[in-house]
Amino acid sequence: MPQVVIFMGSISDEEKMRPCSDLFKELGVDHVFTISSAHRTPERTARLVKEYEETGCQVFICAAGLAAHLAGAVAAQTIKPVLGVPLTASAFGGMDAMMATVQMPPGFPVGTVALDKVGAKNAAWLAAQILALQDEELASKIHKARQGFVESVEKAAASL
Amino acid sequence: MPQVVIFMGSISDEEKMRPCSDLFKELGVDHVFTISSAHRTPERTARLVKEYEETGCQVFICAAGLAAHLAGAVAAQTIKPVLGVPLTASAFGGMDAMMATVQMPPGFPVGTVALDKVGAKNAAWLAAQILALQDEELASKIHKARQGFVESVEKAAASL
Amino acid sequence: MPQVVIFMGSISDEEKMRPCSDLFKELGVDHVFTISSAHRTPERTARLVKEYEETGCQVFICAAGLAAHLAGAVAAQTIKPVLGVPLTASAFGGMDAMMATVQMPPGFPVGTVALDKVGAKNAAWLAAQILALQDEELASKIHKARQGFVESVEKAAASL
Amino acid sequence: MPQVVIFMGSISDEEKMRPCSDLFKELGVDHVFTISSAHRTPERTARLVKEYEETGCQVFICAAGLAAHLAGAVAAQTIKPVLGVPLTASAFGGMDAMMATVQMPPGFPVGTVALDKVGAKNAAWLAAQILALQDEELASKIHKARQGFVESVEKAAASL
Amino acid sequence: MPQVVIFMGSISDEEKMRPCSDLFKELGVDHVFTISSAHRTPERTARLVKEYEETGCQVFICAAGLAAHLAGAVAAQTIKPVLGVPLTASAFGGMDAMMATVQMPPGFPVGTVALDKVGAKNAAWLAAQILALQDEELASKIHKARQGFVESVEKAAASL
Amino acid sequence: MPQVVIFMGSISDEEKMRPCSDLFKELGVDHVFTISSAHRTPERTARLVKEYEETGCQVFICAAGLAAHLAGAVAAQTIKPVLGVPLTASAFGGMDAMMATVQMPPGFPVGTVALDKVGAKNAAWLAAQILALQDEELASKIHKARQGFVESVEKAAASL
Amino acid sequence: MPQVVIFMGSISDEEKMRPCSDLFKELGVDHVFTISSAHRTPERTARLVKEYEETGCQVFICAAGLAAHLAGAVAAQTIKPVLGVPLTASAFGGMDAMMATVQMPPGFPVGTVALDKVGAKNAAWLAAQILALQDEELASKIHKARQGFVESVEKAAASL
Amino acid sequence: MPQVVIFMGSISDEEKMRPCSDLFKELGVDHVFTISSAHRTPERTARLVKEYEETGCQVFICAAGLAAHLAGAVAAQTIKPVLGVPLTASAFGGMDAMMATVQMPPGFPVGTVALDKVGAKNAAWLAAQILALQDEELASKIHKARQGFVESVEKAAASL
Repeated sequence: MPQVVIFMGSISDEEKMRPCSDLFKELGVDHVFTISSAHRTPERTARLVKEYEETGCQVFICAAGLAAHLAGAVAAQTIKPVLGVPLTASAFGGMDAMMATVQMPPGFPVGTVALDKVGAKNAAWLAAQILALQDEELASKIHKARQGFVESVEKAAASL
Repeated sequence: MPQVVIFMGSISDEEKMRPCSDLFKELGVDHVFTISSAHRTPERTARLVKEYEETGCQVFICAAGLAAHLAGAVAAQTIKPVLGVPLTASAFGGMDAMMATVQMPPGFPVGTVALDKVGAKNAAWLAAQILALQDEELASKIHKARQGFVESVEKAAASL
Repeated sequence: MPQVVIFMGSISDEEKMRPCSDLFKELGVDHVFTISSAHRTPERTARLVKEYEETGCQVFICAAGLAAHLAGAVAAQTIKPVLGVPLTASAFGGMDAMMATVQMPPGFPVGTVALDKVGAKNAAWLAAQILALQDEELASKIHKARQGFVESVEKAAASL
Repeated sequence: MPQVVIFMGSISDEEKMRPCSDLFKELGVDHVFTISSAHRTPERTARLVKEYEETGCQVFICAAGLAAHLAGAVAAQTIKPVLGVPLTASAFGGMDAMMATVQMPPGFPVGTVALDKVGAKNAAWLAAQILALQDEELASKIHKARQGFVESVEKAAASL
Repeated sequence: MPQVVIFMGSISDEEKMRPCSDLFKELGVDHVFTISSAHRTPERTARLVKEYEETGCQVFICAAGLAAHLAGAVAAQTIKPVLGVPLTASAFGGMDAMMATVQMPPGFPVGTVALDKVGAKNAAWLAAQILALQDEELASKIHKARQGFVESVEKAAASL
Repeated sequence: MPQVVIFMGSISDEEKMRPCSDLFKELGVDHVFTISSAHRTPERTARLVKEYEETGCQVFICAAGLAAHLAGAVAAQTIKPVLGVPLTASAFGGMDAMMATVQMPPGFPVGTVALDKVGAKNAAWLAAQILALQDEELASKIHKARQGFVESVEKAAASL
Repeated sequence: MPQVVIFMGSISDEEKMRPCSDLFKELGVDHVFTISSAHRTPERTARLVKEYEETGCQVFICAAGLAAHLAGAVAAQTIKPVLGVPLTASAFGGMDAMMATVQMPPGFPVGTVALDKVGAKNAAWLAAQILALQDEELASKIHKARQGFVESVEKAAASL
Repeated sequence: MPQVVIFMGSISDEEKMRPCSDLFKELGVDHVFTISSAHRTPERTARLVKEYEETGCQVFICAAGLAAHLAGAVAAQTIKPVLGVPLTASAFGGMDAMMATVQMPPGFPVGTVALDKVGAKNAAWLAAQILALQDEELASKIHKARQGFVESVEKAAASL
C-alpha cells in the first residue's frame, strides 16, 4: 500500500517527474506514480485522494505546469501533507506554475519545492523526510545519502 | 433566475468586486453575487455551478487572489463561459493571481480580465457583451454606454 | 457566414494560431482565419470588424505579440466579445504581449487566454463555449470533447 | 498653432502629466494638452492626429496606463515622431504600461521614456530636443537648463 | 519538549510570524518561537537545530526576508522536514525571499509556503498536518477547523 | 556628413544592429555605424559625440546590452535626440538593458524602442521620422513604406 | 584625506544613504559624502574620481536610482573598487536600479549590494572590510561589531 | 599561499567559472579554484574559509545557482570581502540566484557581480582591483588591460 502518491497533471510531465519516482525506488518508499488533472478529471483527482488516503497514503506530491492548480485541488481534499512541484510549460519560465502552487490561501498549504527536475527530486526528499519521522530505517538511508553528498563534493573538488 | 453568477473566493474581496455587481444592476442583468472557495468549499463550488447552470446561468465570473484557482475550479465543472478577475492579495502585486488565472491548460479556458476593480468592471462588461449576443435590448444599453464614454472624454478634454 | 473571426497581427503568427482554426474545423464552427494589424492596417482592422459584424460574426479572436494592441483595437470597434491570445515574440517571454492584452481599461474588456499554442486552442474553446449558449449541437460536441479529456487522462495513467 | 500635442488617455492622468505641459510653458513651446483614448474614442484620436498634423504639429506625446495602446494608436496614424509615457495605474507597478508602449512592432516606433512624472518631464525634454534641431533659440534654452542642472548638483553637494 | 521550532531571522519579523505561533497555541502544539540568523548567528542556528532535534523536535519552520538563507541553513543541519516562510522586507515585494527559499538544490528541500502572514499561518497548518500523521487528536482538530472554514464561507455568503 | 550616428557597445552587437544601418541605406539616410563603449572608451564616446555633432549629426542611436549605459552616456554629452535600443545579452532576457535604457532621470531622455532586431529597425524608423520633419523627400519615402506595409498585410491575408 | 568617497546621484538620495556615512563615522573611516551625477555632471564625476584617487581614496561607493549609471560611470574612470547601492525611485521597486548597477560588462565590475538603506549599510561594511585588509584596528572593530550582532540576536530571542 | 579562493557550489558550475580562474592566471594572482556547498558541506565551507583566511586569503569569490546561499554562508564566517557570482541554473533565468546573492542583510555584504561568465570575469577583476590596493604591479597590469580594452574597441570599430 503506497505511502506516497505522485500526481502529474499530464503525461507530458513524465520525464521531469521520473526522478521523483526513481528516488523513492532507491529509498525503498512504496509509492504510486500516476496522472490526474485538476481540470480534466476533478472527480478522479478527488476520488483517488480519498482512496489512497484510506489505504494509508501519508504524503501527496503534485506536479503541474501553467496555472498549476493540481496541488491546491488535492490539498482541498485531504489533511495529509501536500507537496507541490511547479513545472515549466510556457514562455513564462515556470513563474506561472510557481505562483499558482506556492501562494495558497490560509488553511490549505502546499509545501512547494524548486522548479522541474530539481523540484521532482526535492519533493521526494521532503516526503521521505516526513515519512522518516516514523521510520528509523528510512531516516538512516537519508543520513547516508547526505554523507554521500559530502563525499561527492570532496571528490569533485579533488578532481579539479 | 440569474444569468450570471459572480463568485468571490472570500468576503474580503467584496469591496473590489462590488463594481461588478453594480454594473449588472445598471444594465439590468439578473445576477447572483456570492462567495465560494476553490479550497475551503470545493463541494459547494461544484454544487452551485451545477445548480445555477440548471436554472439558466449563462456566464460565471470568478474573482480570487493569491494562487487564484477559483476560476479554474469552476471551469472544470461547466462548459458555460468562465471569466476570471485576478485580485491583488499579497506583495506580489497580483502577479500570482494573474498567472494562476490566465494560464489555464487546453480545454478549460478562463477569459481573464484586468486586475482588481478595473477587472471587476470589465468582467461585467464582457459578460454583458456575451449575453447581448441574444439580447438586443442589452446590446443597445452597451452601445449607449459606449457613446457615454465618448462624451465623457470630450467633456473631460473640454474641462482642461 | 462566419461566426468567429480570428485575426493575427502578422503572417509569422500563423503556426502558433493554426490550432485555433483547426479546432473550429473539428467542431464545425464557421470561421475566418485572417491577418490584420492594429498599426500597419488600422483602417482594414476597423473595416473588417464592421463587415464581419454585419454578416453575423459573434466572437472575435485576436492574436498578437510584442506590444499586442490588436485585441484592444478590435474591442474599440465592436461590442461583440473579443478574446485575446498573447504571443511570444521577443526575449521578454510573452510578458509584453500578456500585459498589453489583459490590462484593458474599463468598458473594453478582452477575455485573455494563455500564451501561444495553448492560448490558441483555448481561445477556440472559449469562443465555442460562447456560441454553444445558443447552439445545443455545439454544446454537445464540447461535452463530448470533455469526456474525451477524461478518457485520455485515464489511458495515459494506465500506460505508465 | 501647436508644435506638440500631449494626449492623455484619461482625466485621471492629469496630475502625472502636468509637469510635461509645465515644462513646455517654461521653454515657450506652443502645445496642446488634451485627452483622447485609444479605446473609448478611437475616431477622435485619429481625427485629432490628422488635424494637428495639418496645422503643423511636429511631435506627439502619449501618456497612458494599463494596456497602454494610446501611443501605438497615434503612431499608426502619423509619421511624425511619437513619444510614449507609461503611467502606473495598477498593482503591476507600471510594467503593464511600459511593455505595451515600448515593444512596438517594426515601422511604428514609439520613443518611450521613464514611468510617470519623470517620464512626463523627459517626454517634454525629448520633444524639445527634436524641435530644437530647427530652432536655435530653443536649443539655447535647453543648453542653459543643462547648465542649471550642473549648478544644482554643485549647490546640493555644497549644502551637505 | 517542543515538536516544532519556529525560527525568525530577526526580531522585526515577529509581527508577521506571530500568527504561526498563535495557531500552534490554538491547536495545542508544543512549540518554540525564537530568533536565529543564518548570517549573524550561524553557530547558534546549527546548535539550536541539533539541540531541539535531540529533544524531539519534528518540524522546523524558518521565516526570513531579503536573501532568505535561514531555511536553507537549517535544512543543511537536519533531516527533519523544514518549512520556509518568505517575508517581504524590501521593495522587491518578497520575490527576493521567495526565490532564496524555494529554489533549494537537490537533497535539501524547503517546503515553501506563501508570503508573510498567509505563509506564517500555512507553515503552522502544514507542520500540524505532518504531526497529525502520528497524532489522531491533532488530525481531528484540523478536520474540525476545515469544517469551520466551510461554515465561515457559507455564513459570509449569507451575509452579502 | 552623417545625419545619424549608430553606436553599438560591442562588436558582438553587430548582427542585431545591422538592420538599423540597412534601413538607413534603403531610405538614403547618411549615417555612421560604429562602436564605442560607455565603460571601455568613455573618452572616445564623448569625443565622437562632440565631433559628429559639430559636423551636423542630428540623431544618435545607441545599442547596448547588460547594464546598458551607452545611451545615457551619450545623452549626457549632447542635446540632440538620443534613441536607445536595449539588447539581450544575459539570461535576464533583455530586462536589464531595457531598465538601464528607458528609466533615465529628468533632463536626459533616451527615446527607447523595442528589444533587439525589432528595436534596431524601429530606432532607424524613428530617427528617419525625426529627420523627415525637415526633409520632405524622406517623409515621402516613409509614407510609401507605410503603404507597403498595408499591401504586405493584404497580400499575406490573401495567401492564407 | 578620505579613504572612501560616497557619491549619490541626487540630493533626494540623502536620507537613504545617510546610514552609510553614519557607519563610517562609527568605524572611524575617513570619508566624503557628496553628490555627483552620471548624466547631469559627467565631468564633475570624472574629475572628482581622479582627484580623490590621487589623494588616496581606496573605495568608491555609488548610490543611484532609476537607470542607475553612476557606479558604472565611476568604474569607467578608476581601477579602485567600486561598490553600488541601487535605490528605489520609481514604481519598478528598485529593479531598474538593480539591473543597471549589477549587470556591468567584463572589465568594469561594480560590487553591488542590497537595495536602499540595507544596501547603504552594507556598502559601508564592505568598504570597511576592504580597508581592513590593511588596517588591523579597523578589522578588530568589525569583528567586535559582529560579536555585537550575535549578542543582539540572543537578547532579542530572550525578549520574546 | 592563495590570495583569493573561488568557491563553486557544484562541479557543474565549472565551465561558467573557469574564466574567473583563467583571468587570475593571466594576472598572476595566486588563487584556489575549488568546490564547496552551503548545504551539502556546510562544515567544509566554514572550515576552508577559516583555513584559507589563516594562510592569507584576502578575497573570497562564491558562485552558485538556484537559491544561491554560498556567498552568504561564506560571508557569515569571515570579515574578508566576499564577492558573489549568481549562476543561471533554472528556468528563472538567474533571477533566483541574483536575489539570493545580492539582497544580504546588514553587516554581511556580498559584492555581487553580473550573471554567469560575465560575472565570473568581473568577480576576478574586482578581486584583482581589491588586491591592487596593496600591489602596484597588479595595479599596473589592470591599467594595461584597460588600455587593451580601448584598443580593442578602436580596432573593432575600424573593422566595420
